[in-house]
Amino acid sequence: MYKVTLSSKDIPKKWYNIAADLPVELPAPSQTEEGQQLGNLPKVFSKGVLEQEMSTERWIEIPKEVRKVYKMIGRPSPLFRATGLEDYLDTPAKIYYKREDTSPTGSHKLNTAIAQAYYAKKDGVERLTTETGAGQWGTALSLACSMLGMECTVYMVRVSFQQKPYRKTIMQIYDGDVIPSPSDKTEFGRKILSEDPNHPGALGIAISEAMEDALQDEKAYYSLGSVLNHVLLHQTVIGLETKKQMEILGEDPDVIVACVGGGSNFGGAVFPFVKDKIDEKIDCKFIAAEPSSCPTLTKGEYKYDFGDTAGLTPLLKMYTLGHDFVPPSVHAGGLRYHGMSSLVSLLVHEGLVEARSVKQGDIFKSGTTFAKCEGVVPAPETCHAIKIGMDEALECKKTGEEKNIIINFSGHGMLDLKGYDDFINGNLAD
Amino acid sequence: MYKVTLSSKDIPKKWYNIAADLPVELPAPSQTEEGQQLGNLPKVFSKGVLEQEMSTERWIEIPKEVRKVYKMIGRPSPLFRATGLEDYLDTPAKIYYKREDTSPTGSHKLNTAIAQAYYAKKDGVERLTTETGAGQWGTALSLACSMLGMECTVYMVRVSFQQKPYRKTIMQIYDGDVIPSPSDKTEFGRKILSEDPNHPGALGIAISEAMEDALQDEKAYYSLGSVLNHVLLHQTVIGLETKKQMEILGEDPDVIVACVGGGSNFGGAVFPFVKDKIDEKIDCKFIAAEPSSCPTLTKGEYKYDFGDTAGLTPLLKMYTLGHDFVPPSVHAGGLRYHGMSSLVSLLVHEGLVEARSVKQGDIFKSGTTFAKCEGVVPAPETCHAIKIGMDEALECKKTGEEKNIIINFSGHGMLDLKGYDDFINGNLAD
Repeated sequence: MYKVTLSSKDIPKKWYNIAADLPVELPAPSQTEEGQQLGNLPKVFSKGVLEQEMSTERWIEIPKEVRKVYKMIGRPSPLFRATGLEDYLDTPAKIYYKREDTSPTGSHKLNTAIAQAYYAKKDGVERLTTETGAGQWGTALSLACSMLGMECTVYMVRVSFQQKPYRKTIMQIYDGDVIPSPSDKTEFGRKILSEDPNHPGALGIAISEAMEDALQDEKAYYSLGSVLNHVLLHQTVIGLETKKQMEILGEDPDVIVACVGGGSNFGGAVFPFVKDKIDEKIDCKFIAAEPSSCPTLTKGEYKYDFGDTAGLTPLLKMYTLGHDFVPPSVHAGGLRYHGMSSLVSLLVHEGLVEARSVKQGDIFKSGTTFAKCEGVVPAPETCHAIKIGMDEALECKKTGEEKNIIINFSGHGMLDLKGYDDFINGNLAD
Repeated sequence: MYKVTLSSKDIPKKWYNIAADLPVELPAPSQTEEGQQLGNLPKVFSKGVLEQEMSTERWIEIPKEVRKVYKMIGRPSPLFRATGLEDYLDTPAKIYYKREDTSPTGSHKLNTAIAQAYYAKKDGVERLTTETGAGQWGTALSLACSMLGMECTVYMVRVSFQQKPYRKTIMQIYDGDVIPSPSDKTEFGRKILSEDPNHPGALGIAISEAMEDALQDEKAYYSLGSVLNHVLLHQTVIGLETKKQMEILGEDPDVIVACVGGGSNFGGAVFPFVKDKIDEKIDCKFIAAEPSSCPTLTKGEYKYDFGDTAGLTPLLKMYTLGHDFVPPSVHAGGLRYHGMSSLVSLLVHEGLVEARSVKQGDIFKSGTTFAKCEGVVPAPETCHAIKIGMDEALECKKTGEEKNIIINFSGHGMLDLKGYDDFINGNLAD
């Protein structure tokens, strides 16, 4: 077996909402000073996603319009077996990787972008604003808006904007309006720039700018690419498809690994399996891989904090490095976030999910090895999951265990080759 | 129907050799001054591909080792229906696209790279040398060599080397040794550089350098990414898979379009269908799309010419602009070639295949439209086929015909975004 494909009609009909099955209740967002539990969110979010954000229904129907666009972009994504990597590692483990890079924008992000654009359009809104770090999310939302006939404004973390000029181009191909953040378009951006005109930017700042923009415009909503419950909900198509694919193979997973920035590809890949573990149907280890330079889960505190830098979001109970934490400019821009999804945080806190941090040099080494063995060049973010997956496979080599290891291959690295170039030429900081 | 996938075991077991079914005999390569019909080729080509180059057997078995690597890289590739583009064009035609971009290196080139590396290794050779224009071929051969445990040296046309710095990086990830051409590594390169130190390079020059390198080293063979019969033979997996996918749909093609540089993705996509046309099983139009800046088929002469600039290859009967023709530095670097596959040339000359040329501005316009409708950003080369496919679909809108149009989607444009950037910002020359 080299790959398991599914046909268009196998796209899940419902998203899985883990809020229905948590071992303890999810701490609700805390009231802000203005007295609203969700802060400004109800003003800038669609009815559809707000309802999903608070829902404890186990299964939430995927609108047929959303399923149609999922089909157009090629879902379900294939599950591959990494036989080349297994041979190279000389491990008895079976390594699988779920190919979210096969989406037209090269990552899992379209899964929620399409849903969010759909619900916003249903409310009569014409434009979505958002932030982007590595560029994957802004690209996905630009395309989703283009496919659904909406406009899109993307505040892009300045350091990514500079490191990845062609990320801007691909968003522009999809008619996205791309603005480097901090920018002079918003009050918050102007404030940051007045303090430091060369500020490299951070995801938290870009979130604040995008929210401020949407709050000023009646015909605009704001869209978030990770962290929130509804985003992780939309991403569960990944895990639901993977479950079907493993069933076809007649195998149960023993280890599932995904990288974490805000937690959405991780949540999407593992939540449907977490339910099976809670139900004692499988005995599986779930590992969240994060960068050592932004060690939210491994070194952060579990407490209420803002999701953005300016404090416009509600306070969320999560692992956090503090909402004013500015991580160094590592290549895995998509993982440079001070906080973490409340759902993922709770599962880590309850011991259902394990977190590990990985160094930048090691992840590019793993990514290069993977590329030589399997062909596909992983995004730097994805390399974190690959590094941990390889560690687990090497552990199996020691113990002789024939474990099934699934790596969520969240995206390809075709637009992140600068990091590889630095790695190859020895210019990479750990 | 949005996509038709096939499982790994559906990979064809045999390549289709159109030499067995040509309406007239293929003119043999002409003797060089040294008196050898194949010139230097027997010294630098494997026994396997030399045999295939001259073969008139209709079906040639794909070695199981090659099929295994085809499986590892995800073959068979999916066939997609472009419903978004159909809606946008408001055409009664059905538009399909065969996704060769889903290969790890992003194009069809791996199909022959894997086969060539396999046969070379079988002869005990340790290194392959080659040229690359756009970079797709060098990337594919680097990966194929890496997966089969061989070394790879790539002479890359200088203008591409400069326009696409990260193409070099991806080849280096696969352990390829990348040298800008003309270079000082070969006698021919030094000669060119002494005349013009800033020479932009051309595919013909890079071929000469790579051949010279291989001729100097007993343990090296030379590998060509297009033009020759065995290369087109290996690419027929594309068309054979597409036939099976159309059979599943219960549809016959009316139009098949592919771009042409040396002719390999075109040949691979259409040859299995050309046989059906000769056998009068289908009535299908085959269109080769080439750039107006390098109009080999539409303005070239059908005669014997060298495949490279220095005259190291045998003389081939083909459409040619002359082996000293240096095309302008357009973005579709993969189509900047003075000559054309003898097989494709013969089919054009016999009227079985139609050729059309397309302007650079128009191809980026079509590519951008396609990306907005379908998501995937096509390579500039692929945009040529898309432009013609869209023209055909618009023709159907006038006539009301519900034709089945297949576009061979030869590669994605993730590493070609400079061209799109120039197009968006109005910096593109026609």
